[in-house]
Amino acid sequence: MAAVDYQQLLQDVMAEALGGGARGRSADYIPALAAADPGAFGMAIATVDGAVHGVGEWERAFSIQSVSKLFTLALALAEGGDGLWRGVGREPSGNPFNSLVQLETEHGIPRNPFINAGALVVTDRLLELTGDAVGAVREFLRTESGNPEVGTDDAVAASEARHGHRNAALAHFIASYGNLRNPVDSVLAHYYAHCAISASCRDLALAGLFLARHGVRVDGSRLLSRSEAKRINAVMLTCGTYDAAGEFAYRVGLPGKSGVGGGVLAILPGRGSVCVWSPGLDAAGNSVLGVAALDALTTATGWSVF
Amino acid sequence: MAAVDYQQLLQDVMAEALGGGARGRSADYIPALAAADPGAFGMAIATVDGAVHGVGEWERAFSIQSVSKLFTLALALAEGGDGLWRGVGREPSGNPFNSLVQLETEHGIPRNPFINAGALVVTDRLLELTGDAVGAVREFLRTESGNPEVGTDDAVAASEARHGHRNAALAHFIASYGNLRNPVDSVLAHYYAHCAISASCRDLALAGLFLARHGVRVDGSRLLSRSEAKRINAVMLTCGTYDAAGEFAYRVGLPGKSGVGGGVLAILPGRGSVCVWSPGLDAAGNSVLGVAALDALTTATGWSVF
Amino acid sequence: MAAVDYQQLLQDVMAEALGGGARGRSADYIPALAAADPGAFGMAIATVDGAVHGVGEWERAFSIQSVSKLFTLALALAEGGDGLWRGVGREPSGNPFNSLVQLETEHGIPRNPFINAGALVVTDRLLELTGDAVGAVREFLRTESGNPEVGTDDAVAASEARHGHRNAALAHFIASYGNLRNPVDSVLAHYYAHCAISASCRDLALAGLFLARHGVRVDGSRLLSRSEAKRINAVMLTCGTYDAAGEFAYRVGLPGKSGVGGGVLAILPGRGSVCVWSPGLDAAGNSVLGVAALDALTTATGWSVF
Amino acid sequence: MAAVDYQQLLQDVMAEALGGGARGRSADYIPALAAADPGAFGMAIATVDGAVHGVGEWERAFSIQSVSKLFTLALALAEGGDGLWRGVGREPSGNPFNSLVQLETEHGIPRNPFINAGALVVTDRLLELTGDAVGAVREFLRTESGNPEVGTDDAVAASEARHGHRNAALAHFIASYGNLRNPVDSVLAHYYAHCAISASCRDLALAGLFLARHGVRVDGSRLLSRSEAKRINAVMLTCGTYDAAGEFAYRVGLPGKSGVGGGVLAILPGRGSVCVWSPGLDAAGNSVLGVAALDALTTATGWSVF
Repeated sequence: MAAVDYQQLLQDVMAEALGGGARGRSADYIPALAAADPGAFGMAIATVDGAVHGVGEWERAFSIQSVSKLFTLALALAEGGDGLWRGVGREPSGNPFNSLVQLETEHGIPRNPFINAGALVVTDRLLELTGDAVGAVREFLRTESGNPEVGTDDAVAASEARHGHRNAALAHFIASYGNLRNPVDSVLAHYYAHCAISASCRDLALAGLFLARHGVRVDGSRLLSRSEAKRINAVMLTCGTYDAAGEFAYRVGLPGKSGVGGGVLAILPGRGSVCVWSPGLDAAGNSVLGVAALDALTTATGWSVF
Repeated sequence: MAAVDYQQLLQDVMAEALGGGARGRSADYIPALAAADPGAFGMAIATVDGAVHGVGEWERAFSIQSVSKLFTLALALAEGGDGLWRGVGREPSGNPFNSLVQLETEHGIPRNPFINAGALVVTDRLLELTGDAVGAVREFLRTESGNPEVGTDDAVAASEARHGHRNAALAHFIASYGNLRNPVDSVLAHYYAHCAISASCRDLALAGLFLARHGVRVDGSRLLSRSEAKRINAVMLTCGTYDAAGEFAYRVGLPGKSGVGGGVLAILPGRGSVCVWSPGLDAAGNSVLGVAALDALTTATGWSVF
Repeated sequence: MAAVDYQQLLQDVMAEALGGGARGRSADYIPALAAADPGAFGMAIATVDGAVHGVGEWERAFSIQSVSKLFTLALALAEGGDGLWRGVGREPSGNPFNSLVQLETEHGIPRNPFINAGALVVTDRLLELTGDAVGAVREFLRTESGNPEVGTDDAVAASEARHGHRNAALAHFIASYGNLRNPVDSVLAHYYAHCAISASCRDLALAGLFLARHGVRVDGSRLLSRSEAKRINAVMLTCGTYDAAGEFAYRVGLPGKSGVGGGVLAILPGRGSVCVWSPGLDAAGNSVLGVAALDALTTATGWSVF
Repeated sequence: MAAVDYQQLLQDVMAEALGGGARGRSADYIPALAAADPGAFGMAIATVDGAVHGVGEWERAFSIQSVSKLFTLALALAEGGDGLWRGVGREPSGNPFNSLVQLETEHGIPRNPFINAGALVVTDRLLELTGDAVGAVREFLRTESGNPEVGTDDAVAASEARHGHRNAALAHFIASYGNLRNPVDSVLAHYYAHCAISASCRDLALAGLFLARHGVRVDGSRLLSRSEAKRINAVMLTCGTYDAAGEFAYRVGLPGKSGVGGGVLAILPGRGSVCVWSPGLDAAGNSVLGVAALDALTTATGWSVF
C-alpha cells in the first residue's frame, strides 16, 4: 500500500467541503458562540504514530462544547468501570439532544452519554471518582495533545450558566430520580466548565488517538482495554451526533462526536483521528462543513468502517 | 496473517454461546413461531470467496422474518435509487419496533427501513418497481445462496395476516399521509410473504455476501455501488436490531439485522457474512444466543468494525 | 321569573355571532364537506316541554359528523350499561382528536367516547348490542325529532370510507389490543354511516332534549337514569369538543358536542337543548360561529352551568 | 323547596363515605404528609349566606397543598386580568400532574393553572403583581374564613423544598422558554410556601364561597366579575383533579380542586362551597374518601351542575 500523502489529502478534502454552498448558522444561544464566522474552517489528522497534519485554521482554539463528552465518558469508564452503565444507557435517543421526554419515560436514566442528560450523569460520576471532573478532562487533553494551553474559557462557562435553564432542568429532573450523587449546582458547574474548554483541531485530533490506538495513550500506557475502546467507538457511531447519528453513519461511516462550537472529532480505528472545525451548524446541531469534510474524506479514501 | 480455521472458530463460539444460561422466549404472537425450541442453534460463516462453514443446525430452514427487510432495502435501492429516502428516514427510532408514536410526529415518514413501518414503505416501493416484491426477494435469495428451495411458508404468511392488526394499522396510517403508492392490502400481502420466507443460516450467510463484497453479487455483477453497500451496512449498524441497536453495536460491533424468527445476519465488511439462528428472544426481540454468539465471535477475533 | 322570549334571544345571539369577524374554514378532507359555505348559519333551541325555536338556516339538514357520537354513547349505555367503560375511558384526551399516541400508551383503551378511537369502540359495542348501530341512531333521531327524513347521506359515507385511512388505522390498532368485538370493516362501515347522517338544527335540538330532561325521551319513557344522563353531560363538558374542551367550558360553560360538519349541540340541563350550525371551523375542529353563538347565549342569559 | 338540614346531610354523607372499604395511601414524598392517618375525615359545607356546618375533624387544620392553586389563580386574575392566559392554558392535561412532556411539546406554556407547571407560572405572576404571593393567599384565606390562624407550616415548606427536584426542574424548564418573570428560586419559595398553608375544612369551605357567590367576597366586595368566577369554576371542573378530572366530573359533577394533603374543595354554584379532608389518596392523587363523600353528596341531593 502506498504511503498516504495526508497533507494533499487534507487540501483536497478542504477544497471539496468549501466548494459546497451551504454554511449553516453559528450556535446563537450564548453570545460567545454566536460571534463565530460560520464559514471558518480548520481540519487536522493525527495518525497512530503520533504525527499530525492540518489545513486551514487547524491550530486555532475553539469551544469544544459537546466534544468534551467523549473525554468525560472515557475517563469515567477508565476510573470507575462498567458500573457507569447503571446510570446511563447506550441507545440512540431518537429525539433532539436536550429532550426531557425520554428521560421521563425511562425514569431518570438518560439514553446515552452523549445527550446532555447523559453527559450530566457522566460528569457527576467523574466528579465523584476524581473530585474534579473538569480538571481531569483538562489534564487529559493537555497531556495527549502536548499543549499546556488547553483550558476552560471562563467567559463561555459563565455564559452557559446564565443561559442554562434547560440543563438545570435536566439536572434537577435526573436528581428527582436519585440518579445524581453530587449537588446539582456542582454537577452543573463542572459540566459547563468542561464544555467551555478551548482547544484546536490539532489538539483534539491528538487527544482522540487513544481510541484509534484501541485504548493506548500517547505515553504508551493503557487508559482502556481494547474492548472498552472499541465500545466507546460504537457508542460514538450510534449516538455521537445528536439526532443525526444515522445520517452521519450513512454519509461518513466513522465514529464521531460533534459539538455546537462547530467541532467534530472522528476516529479512524487503527489508523488515526480526525478533527474538523467550522462553526456553521445544521438543524441537528452538527457542523455543516465539518460533516461535509468528513464525508469527502471517507468517500475519497474508503476509510469508512463499513 | 495465518489462515483462519473457521470451523474451529465456529465450534468455539457455539460452545461459548451455549455455555451462558439465558435462552429467552420464542416469539408467541403467531402459533408457527411459538412452537420453536428457544435453545435450538445454528451458525454459518460465508467468506467473500464464496466458501461457507457451519455448526449446529446451520442448514435447517427457519422463518427469516425481519431479516428480509435487509434484502427488500437493498433491492429497492438497486432498482430505484436514492429517491427511496424521500419516503423513509435512516435514523434510529428510539422506540419499540412497531410503535406508531414517532410515525405520527414525523408525518408518515418512518424513521428507518428496518422498523415495521419503514419496511412497509420499502415493500411498497419495491412492489412498484418490480411488480412482485416477494418474488424479487425470493429470487435474489435463491440465486445468491444457490438454493432453489428458498421460498415463502404460506402457513406462516397466512398466520401473520390473521394476527396482523398492528401492521394493518401502520399501513393505513402511512397511507393516510399519502406515503404508499399501492393499495394497503397488496402492500401487506407482499410484506407478510417476504417475512415468511424460510431459509437456513447457510442460505442467509451466502445471501449477505454482497454487502461484505461492497455491492458485488455471487456472479460478479454489481448490485450496488461500493458507497451504497457501505451505507446499507451503516443503516444496519444504527437501526438493524430494533430498540437495541446501540447495545448490539456496543457488544458485537458489526452491522446486523435480526428477525423474530431468531435469525441474525451480520456483515464482516471485506471478509464475510455470518448468520446465527436461535429462536429464544430477549425483550427487544433479538435472539439471545444469536447475539451472544456474535459477541463471542468478535471478542475472540477482534473483527468488530471499530 | 319572566318568560324567556326565545325567538328574540336567538335573533340577538345570531346578530352578535355574525358580527364577529372570523369565519374559519370548512372541513376539507372530503369533497362533500369542503363545498359548504363557512359563513352559513342556523340555530335552534328546544325547551324541555318540546317547543322549538330557530333562526337562520335552522331547518336545513347538514352532516352531523361527530355529533352522532353523543347518540351512539347514549344508546350503547342504555342498551348495555356501565360495562361499556371497560373498553373506553372518560378522561379528556389532551391531544388532537384522532391521535394514536395516547391509544398506544394506554393499551388500546381510548381515553373517551368522543375521540374517534373511542367512538369506534362505542360503535362496535352498539353494533354488538343491536345488530345495527347506524339503524339504532337513525331511528332514535327520527323519533325524538319527529322527522322521518333524518337519514344517512350515502355519498358522504362513501367519501369518508375512501378517505378513511386514519380511522382504519385506529380501528386496526384497537383490534390489535383485542378491544373490538366485530370485524374492523363492519365497525368502520357503521361508524362512517352514523357520522354521515344528515339532520337540521331543529332535529338535533329536539333529539338532545333527553339529556336536558335527565334521561326522559319525547314519549315520556326513560332512556337513561337521571344519574346516567347527568354523567353523559359531564363527559360532554370535559371531552365533547376535541382538544378545546377546556376552552369551550371556559367560554360557554355548557355540555356540548361538536362535529366537523359545523354542528354543535349543547345541553341546558333542566331547561333545554341548543343546536347551532355553521361550517367554518377553527384549528381544533369546532365551528367558529357555533361556539361564538353559544358564548353569546350564555353570556346574555347566565345559563352556564357554573 | 324545603330547607336543607345540612347537618343531617353531612352525617349521612360521612356515614356513606366511611362505609366504603378503600382508604388509599397518604402522600409519602415528604415525611410531614406521610404521617397522616389515611382514614381521618372531616367535611364542611358553607352556604352563600355565610353559614357553615361540619362533621368529623372539620376544624382540624391540614396541609392544603394544591388547593392553594385555586386561590393563586383567582388572585392573579383579580390583580392582573386576562393577560394571565398568555402564559398558561386552560385545557385538561391528559397526563400525570407533574409531567414535563406536554410542557416541552407546547413550548413552555403549561396546559392549565392546576398542574404544577401552570401553578408555578401563576405564582410567578402573582408574585410580580403583589410582591408577596404567599402573603396574598394567606391574607385572602384569613379574611374569607375569619380565622387569623391560617398560615404556612414552615416545616412542610422546607421539606417540600428539600424534596423538590421535580418542581425545580419544571421551573427551570419554564424559565428556559422565557415564561417566568422572577428568579426561579423566588418562584419556588413562594410556591412551596402557599402549598404548605395549613387550614381546616371550615376555613376552606368559607374561603371558597366567593366562587359560589360568583365573584363576591365575604365583605360584599367583588373580587371577580360574575363571568370570571364562572370561568374559574369551568377550569376547576375540567382540570382541578389532576388526571382524573373526567372521572370527578362524571362521579361528582361539581367544580373541585384537590390537594395531596387530602383536601378537596368543591363549589355548588349559587348555593355554597364544600370542603372534605381525608389523607388517603388514590392513584391519581385525589382523596379517596373525599371524592367518595362528594359523590355521595351529589347523588343524595342532585346538586351536580349537570
